[in-house]
Amino acid sequence: MLVLSSPSGAGKTTLSRLLLAQDSRITMSVSVTTRKPRPGEVEGTDYYFTDVDGFRHMRDTGALLEHATVFGNLYGTPRKPVEDALAHGRDVLFDIDWQGTQQLEESDGAKDDLVKVFILPPSAAALEERLRGRGQDADDVVHQRMAKASDEISHYDAYDYILINEDVEKSLVKLKAILQAERLRRRRLTGLAHFVNTLRAGL
Amino acid sequence: MLVLSSPSGAGKTTLSRLLLAQDSRITMSVSVTTRKPRPGEVEGTDYYFTDVDGFRHMRDTGALLEHATVFGNLYGTPRKPVEDALAHGRDVLFDIDWQGTQQLEESDGAKDDLVKVFILPPSAAALEERLRGRGQDADDVVHQRMAKASDEISHYDAYDYILINEDVEKSLVKLKAILQAERLRRRRLTGLAHFVNTLRAGL
Repeated sequence: MLVLSSPSGAGKTTLSRLLLAQDSRITMSVSVTTRKPRPGEVEGTDYYFTDVDGFRHMRDTGALLEHATVFGNLYGTPRKPVEDALAHGRDVLFDIDWQGTQQLEESDGAKDDLVKVFILPPSAAALEERLRGRGQDADDVVHQRMAKASDEISHYDAYDYILINEDVEKSLVKLKAILQAERLRRRRLTGLAHFVNTLRAGL
Repeated sequence: MLVLSSPSGAGKTTLSRLLLAQDSRITMSVSVTTRKPRPGEVEGTDYYFTDVDGFRHMRDTGALLEHATVFGNLYGTPRKPVEDALAHGRDVLFDIDWQGTQQLEESDGAKDDLVKVFILPPSAAALEERLRGRGQDADDVVHQRMAKASDEISHYDAYDYILINEDVEKSLVKLKAILQAERLRRRRLTGLAHFVNTLRAGL
């Protein structure tokens, strides 16, 4: 379970897409939200879009692994697709904020298997530029988002790894190294005890 | 502090050499030993060679970070070169066995900074072939070494990462990924708190 968190505008979505395109062993966890779709966003790929009642029903029936409120919109992670992917030996990528990460960490069995990566922008100026660069939002929305970014950044110390995203290609290499290394962790290698027993029996 | 342990013949020495040649940020910790030099071994590169009295003096004056006895020979890690390298912000590679790893882990301040990698051969047959392949040793020495290998392997579960060394080039890529990932760990990034404070102040 690979968690990517970052302030909005630090390049997390681009990095996630590149990683998913290049690594066949990892599946994206698609969040459910009550936020309205942005132009180009696709149901089931970017988000599952629902209304507040639908969201609350999922939450109240335990169908969400984590959920959070951001700017008055509800976001959550549907439990079943994650559990199915993990049961099939696949890794799962979560694009969630610090609140969601905290809840995921508290959910049953997740903690030991969680790898938490926080992506930082190289500078405040770069972040502001990227937030303005989207060009879809009014000034007060950008300012609101920068305040939110500052708040999100303040939680960096709950994460295992930090990527300062100066160059997306270099950051992708680093992210892939983290994933490759974590897959080599002893406790994640299934069948290792059996392999070692067989090895020793042959010596 | 990157520890590589493995049974003799699993390819650890080759991997260490390749890593050192390709990564300028890491320094080898050269062990001191009372064992006789093998053909081609160079003082100060492969080992520091000494006698039992010299070794005991180092050990008794606290000049060794760890020490162990293997087949009646004494091996140890001189403390000063390691502390000097770390003080200069360099990483240090240790080619030591499970006993040495355990002692290193118990030494002051080391535990948090230790990354422990265990290298396994792909099969018992491959290990035997490599042990015989050296061609320098008698049959009983090979058998003794295989028994020692089996014992060393039994301690694999004290390590963070496991590399099954089927192909040295692939193993090197994995080892480099581990090193790259561990360098991105939040707690290892010096100046991060200051960077984050500056970032937030600019938002």
